[in-house]
Amino acid sequence: MLDAGRAGDRSAVARLLTLVERGGDDAAAVDRVVFGASGSARTIGLTGAPGAGKSTLVNALIAEVRAGGRRVGVLAVDPSSPFTGGAILGDRVRMGDHVLDDGVFIRSMATRGHLGGLTVATPQAARVLDAVGCDVVLVETVGVGQVEVEVAGEADVTVVVVNPGWGDAVQANKAGLMEIADAFVINKADRPGASDTRRDLEQMLELSVRSPEAARPEVATAVATSGEGVAEVWQVVERAYGHLEASGQLADRRRARLEAELGRVVAARLAARVAHLAAGGTYGEALDDVLARRVPPWDAADRLVSGSHS
Amino acid sequence: MLDAGRAGDRSAVARLLTLVERGGDDAAAVDRVVFGASGSARTIGLTGAPGAGKSTLVNALIAEVRAGGRRVGVLAVDPSSPFTGGAILGDRVRMGDHVLDDGVFIRSMATRGHLGGLTVATPQAARVLDAVGCDVVLVETVGVGQVEVEVAGEADVTVVVVNPGWGDAVQANKAGLMEIADAFVINKADRPGASDTRRDLEQMLELSVRSPEAARPEVATAVATSGEGVAEVWQVVERAYGHLEASGQLADRRRARLEAELGRVVAARLAARVAHLAAGGTYGEALDDVLARRVPPWDAADRLVSGSHS
Repeated sequence: MLDAGRAGDRSAVARLLTLVERGGDDAAAVDRVVFGASGSARTIGLTGAPGAGKSTLVNALIAEVRAGGRRVGVLAVDPSSPFTGGAILGDRVRMGDHVLDDGVFIRSMATRGHLGGLTVATPQAARVLDAVGCDVVLVETVGVGQVEVEVAGEADVTVVVVNPGWGDAVQANKAGLMEIADAFVINKADRPGASDTRRDLEQMLELSVRSPEAARPEVATAVATSGEGVAEVWQVVERAYGHLEASGQLADRRRARLEAELGRVVAARLAARVAHLAAGGTYGEALDDVLARRVPPWDAADRLVSGSHS
Repeated sequence: MLDAGRAGDRSAVARLLTLVERGGDDAAAVDRVVFGASGSARTIGLTGAPGAGKSTLVNALIAEVRAGGRRVGVLAVDPSSPFTGGAILGDRVRMGDHVLDDGVFIRSMATRGHLGGLTVATPQAARVLDAVGCDVVLVETVGVGQVEVEVAGEADVTVVVVNPGWGDAVQANKAGLMEIADAFVINKADRPGASDTRRDLEQMLELSVRSPEAARPEVATAVATSGEGVAEVWQVVERAYGHLEASGQLADRRRARLEAELGRVVAARLAARVAHLAAGGTYGEALDDVLARRVPPWDAADRLVSGSHS
C-alpha cells in the first residue's frame, strides 16, 4: 500500500489513513511500514476559532505550495459529530479546487469518542502523508479545546488564525494559543478592526514569556477568499521554519514530540487492556460495587489495575 | 475536611477540590470519604461557544436558585492557560456578586496538560460539592472541543447556550452539542437575529434523531446581563429534569456516567503506571530506539506494556 501510495494511488493512501484512525494493531502495522520512510516532510499546523476561515486559508496555501512544485498533504482535524459531519457549513467545498491535482491529498480526520484518538492518530497520519511523498503537510485544527490545542501544537510550525474585531486575539490567548504560535495570520483582514487586532496581538506578544532562542512570532494579514496576502503568509511560515532549523529548535521539537507520542501510544495500549479487562467478569463485579455505591471508582479501579498484573 | 466543608468552611472545600484536581492517590483518598455522602445534588451543565455569555447566565441562575433557598456549587471548567488565566476577559468578575453568600461555592477548574484530567476530575469535583451540601451544581464548560463536549455531557441536564446571529446554531450542531442538549438558551436575545436562531434550532431539532423516551429539548431566550428570561430558563431546566426523572432516564444516565467514570479512572491509574515506567531504564532504551528511528512508537510501546506485566 505504501508503494502504491507513493506512485500516486490515492485509495491506497486513504486505506493507510483509515487503518491509522482505527488505532490498535492496525495502526501498529502501518507504523511498522511507514515510520522508517518518514521524517522529511515539513508539518505546518493551522489553528484558530471556528469560522476564522482556516479551511479557506489552507485552500489558498495549497495553491501557493503547489506553485513551488511541492506535494501537499492536508489533515483536517474536525471535532464535529461524525453523523452531522463537517460539511454542513460547506467549509470543505472549496477544497474541491484541488480535487484533480494528484500532488494534493486531503483527509478529514474524525476520531471522536476514541480515547486519546486525535492526539495518537494525527502525528501518525502526518507520517503516512510524509512517507508517500508529501513535502508539506498542513494540519488544520479548531483551536479551542484541550485536545485540539494539543494537536495544534504537534506540528513543526504552528500558525494561529484570528479575525479582525475586539476579543478575537483575547480569545486566542485564553485558549492557550499564544504559547504555541510561531506565527499569526489575521484573516478576513478587509473587515474593520484588523489594525486593532494586530495591536492586541503585538501587545500580548510583548507580554508573553518565550525561551531565549525563540523568535518573536510574526503577524501577517490576509484575505484568504481572494488570495490577498497568502504569499506573504507562506513567507512568514518559511521564515519561522528557517529560524527553527537554524537555531536547532526544530530538532528539539521533533524529539520532544516523538517522546510525547511514545507516552501516548503506551497509554493507548494500556487503555486497550482496560477495554479487554472490561469484557471480563471481575470488571462487572467492580462496576456493580460502584453502581451500588459500595466502592468509590478510584478504589474499584485500583483493584482492577492491580489484578491485571497477574 | 468534609465535616468542615459541610459546616460552611470554604477553605476546607477548596482543599478537597485541589486534591481532586491533583488526581492519583490524593483524589482516591477524597473519593473514599466523599463518594458515600454524594448522590443527591442535581448537576446542570451549561455549555456553548466562547463569548456566548455562559458565565453571566450562570451568575444569574445562581441568584435564581438561591431565591429558592437552595445551596449552589459552580464548577467553571476553563481550558485556558493556567498562567494567562481565565480572568483576562473579566468573565469571572461578575461572579463576585455572590462572594459573600455562603450558600454559594464557585471554583474554576484548571487541569490543562493532565492526561484525562478534566474528564476524571470534573465528576469527582461535582461529588465534593454534592457531599458538602450543595443542592444544585452548575458546571460551565466551553462547548467546543472533544474533551469539553464530553465534560458538558456529564451532567444530569445539559443546557446549550447560543447567541442570535447566523451560524451560531450551526456551529453548536457542528461541535456535537445538538446530541447532548436537553435544553437551549438563546442568550443576548435583545440582539438582532434571535428569532432566526430559534428557527434554525427548531429545524435542527426536527431533523435530529432522539431515543423514543427522550423529550424534545425546549428553547428559551434570555438576556442574562439584565436578568430577563432567567427565571424561564430555570423553569425549562426544571421541566427537563422532571421529565428525565419521571421517564427513568435520569437513573440510566447516572448509571452510564458512573460506568464511564470507572473506565476513565482505570485509564488514569494505568497512565500513572506509564509515568512510573517512564522513570525506569527500560523506558529510556525504548525512547532511544524511537528517537534513532530504529523502532516505531507502537512497537516500542508494546515492548514496554508487555514488560510491565512482570
